[in-house]
Amino acid sequence: MKLLKVDTIASARDKTVNILQNKLLKTECRKLLESQGYILASDIISREPVPAFHRSAVDGYAVISGDTAGSSENLPVFLECVDEIDMGSPALKEIHPGECVYVPTGGMIPPGADAVVMVEYCEAFDSSHVAVYSPVSYGKNVVLAGEDIEQGEIVIKKGTKIRPQEIGAMASLGITEAVVFKPWEITIISTGDELVPPHTTPAPGEIRDINSYSLCAQAQKHGLTVLNTVVQKDDEQKLKEAVIQAMQVSDVVIISGGSSQGKKDATNDIIDEVASEGSFIHGLALKPGKPTIAGYDENSRTLLAGLPGHPVAAMLVFELLVIWVWKHLTDQPADSSLFARITSNLAGAPGKMTCQLVKLIRQENEIHAEPVFGKSGLITTMTRADGYILIDENKEGLKKDEIVEVFYI
Amino acid sequence: MKLLKVDTIASARDKTVNILQNKLLKTECRKLLESQGYILASDIISREPVPAFHRSAVDGYAVISGDTAGSSENLPVFLECVDEIDMGSPALKEIHPGECVYVPTGGMIPPGADAVVMVEYCEAFDSSHVAVYSPVSYGKNVVLAGEDIEQGEIVIKKGTKIRPQEIGAMASLGITEAVVFKPWEITIISTGDELVPPHTTPAPGEIRDINSYSLCAQAQKHGLTVLNTVVQKDDEQKLKEAVIQAMQVSDVVIISGGSSQGKKDATNDIIDEVASEGSFIHGLALKPGKPTIAGYDENSRTLLAGLPGHPVAAMLVFELLVIWVWKHLTDQPADSSLFARITSNLAGAPGKMTCQLVKLIRQENEIHAEPVFGKSGLITTMTRADGYILIDENKEGLKKDEIVEVFYI
Repeated sequence: MKLLKVDTIASARDKTVNILQNKLLKTECRKLLESQGYILASDIISREPVPAFHRSAVDGYAVISGDTAGSSENLPVFLECVDEIDMGSPALKEIHPGECVYVPTGGMIPPGADAVVMVEYCEAFDSSHVAVYSPVSYGKNVVLAGEDIEQGEIVIKKGTKIRPQEIGAMASLGITEAVVFKPWEITIISTGDELVPPHTTPAPGEIRDINSYSLCAQAQKHGLTVLNTVVQKDDEQKLKEAVIQAMQVSDVVIISGGSSQGKKDATNDIIDEVASEGSFIHGLALKPGKPTIAGYDENSRTLLAGLPGHPVAAMLVFELLVIWVWKHLTDQPADSSLFARITSNLAGAPGKMTCQLVKLIRQENEIHAEPVFGKSGLITTMTRADGYILIDENKEGLKKDEIVEVFYI
Repeated sequence: MKLLKVDTIASARDKTVNILQNKLLKTECRKLLESQGYILASDIISREPVPAFHRSAVDGYAVISGDTAGSSENLPVFLECVDEIDMGSPALKEIHPGECVYVPTGGMIPPGADAVVMVEYCEAFDSSHVAVYSPVSYGKNVVLAGEDIEQGEIVIKKGTKIRPQEIGAMASLGITEAVVFKPWEITIISTGDELVPPHTTPAPGEIRDINSYSLCAQAQKHGLTVLNTVVQKDDEQKLKEAVIQAMQVSDVVIISGGSSQGKKDATNDIIDEVASEGSFIHGLALKPGKPTIAGYDENSRTLLAGLPGHPVAAMLVFELLVIWVWKHLTDQPADSSLFARITSNLAGAPGKMTCQLVKLIRQENEIHAEPVFGKSGLITTMTRADGYILIDENKEGLKKDEIVEVFYI
């Protein structure tokens, strides 16, 4: 009975990372506007300074700052306006003491000028002179060349999930394609004699299949590609055929259900049979999530993961193991989390890490985490939850008002 | 000079919500697996109890709990095993005192049984009898019909952004299509004589267009549809034509740039001219984000928003105004936020709300928010940021270590 040799979630992650190494990582090029949500496969390094020229941060007059010293509402300084810079045009004419040049926001600052007086503090005096009513200091309202980004600077790190601001930054650098990690291609097989498709009305004893839907959506949420979802009766031969077929085209094959100790549980045997390295995880010290199996096949380079049949347990193990490994291998930083105060005492599970769903409640300047209970098969416990907390296997439990770290789900 | 009549962000939101009412809201049906990230347009109500029958939560023997009273490792109770339930098959035969029935996890519990003894606490004694080594209480290991969801219960609320767990819950209820709000269809016009496409090398005075990229990605991130992005020189007639063309097909037309007080700024005039209701926002008391304009055209039912040209200011105003209004109109709950300790003193802006970008830093059981500075045109200030905080217009500033609310961006 292999289920007794269970792994902690930490050792299961280590084992999976070690066996996969970087074998399941490929990269691909994506057009900038189609790269959102993908993971950068290398650092983005600037090939040029940004901005490429000294720019004005305001609409105003580019000046030599010293010329404006001592000016005030009552005693303006008069400067000769020798040029007007159009947006997008170069400012080539150097200015000299006593001169100024009109520059719009974002416009290029002419050589010789070292500051810009906002148009609000200036007034046209005659056709060629401007009255300046306020002094400016050196560098005021000027964005220096290279002030945003220096040439050769790492602008965005490998492992970054591309957001709108990264797309904007790449556009500003002239980068129109991003090299990203190719999302794993996944097949999800949901097993069970009791499963019927969602559009049908189940007979007594039957239930609608949830896992092929929820796990598919979960993979997509994390940017992975779902090639196919299959619902399979508990027939060992047919299940094996489905797994072998999926292995030919998939990076990861997920099998949910069929991994507990019941009579028809064949997932472990199948993984041992079809995967060159056999199964290397035979249960997790995790509540819920004990009946978890993982194996690896070197020939087809496929990770095989047998998840619990319970919808909530299946989603949590998928998140804590498969998605975690994907994030780790692609150099993604740790998940964003927050700290909250737990609203009731919670018991841990001896020798097991507990994954407890919580709902976040805002109370003044604090966020409280309220445990969401439900037997693990009940999917609505997850629709009521905003995230989960982990109670360490060595911890007896949590006391009401203790600070906990909450991960979004 | 209309820019002086500025609105607070709160009044700008109110004005926009009032003028739009629900005119820009349509719904559409989406297949379950294509509904992730969309916003539910009505409550999901269960038409049936879930589960539909009493199910076992474990592999074991369904029993009358009273029969197991007093059993122990040394003194088992012997029960006659009168049936074995297959997964997906109905359990029709009632059990009587002294009898038990094998039920797999998720299997139907036969009439008469009120608890299930886990298989680990049982042993086959002979071909028809089972030894039970542990007592069970009434209801133990049984998931009652309707325990997950009662018939008529609201399972998921209108305004919910559909996640994998909502997709799973809908599958369990036999709901294979979701009625969602049809995402706004948006055209983004980025204006400026200085703008050149990202794939070109800018001449002195020119810069690459950022906003049509970053705003497009930002709209898509929030589930909105971008019909088209246009880069337009500062030519009032051509800009007007581009706006009129976009209004025919779009729910929202975004014009970035051209709304400050410079000479070529025509956005406000154009909106006043082409929109039946004219412009109703002429500047925001927001730093950055002052040169913001909004108008509404009743004929084409189009919201027109003139955003600042600065990439960071454009993204922040898009988030704080346009995206906020979309979320509000579609009944979405408040954005998830977290509280953090600010790492330095920060000055507010008199009479203006300040939107300050921050980076989140985890320190033990606390999260710290470190301000990310940069002149507002510098897009990399946003790539370094995890979120933003708002400093109220009535507040002089923030003191180091003060608790602030951080919104993700």
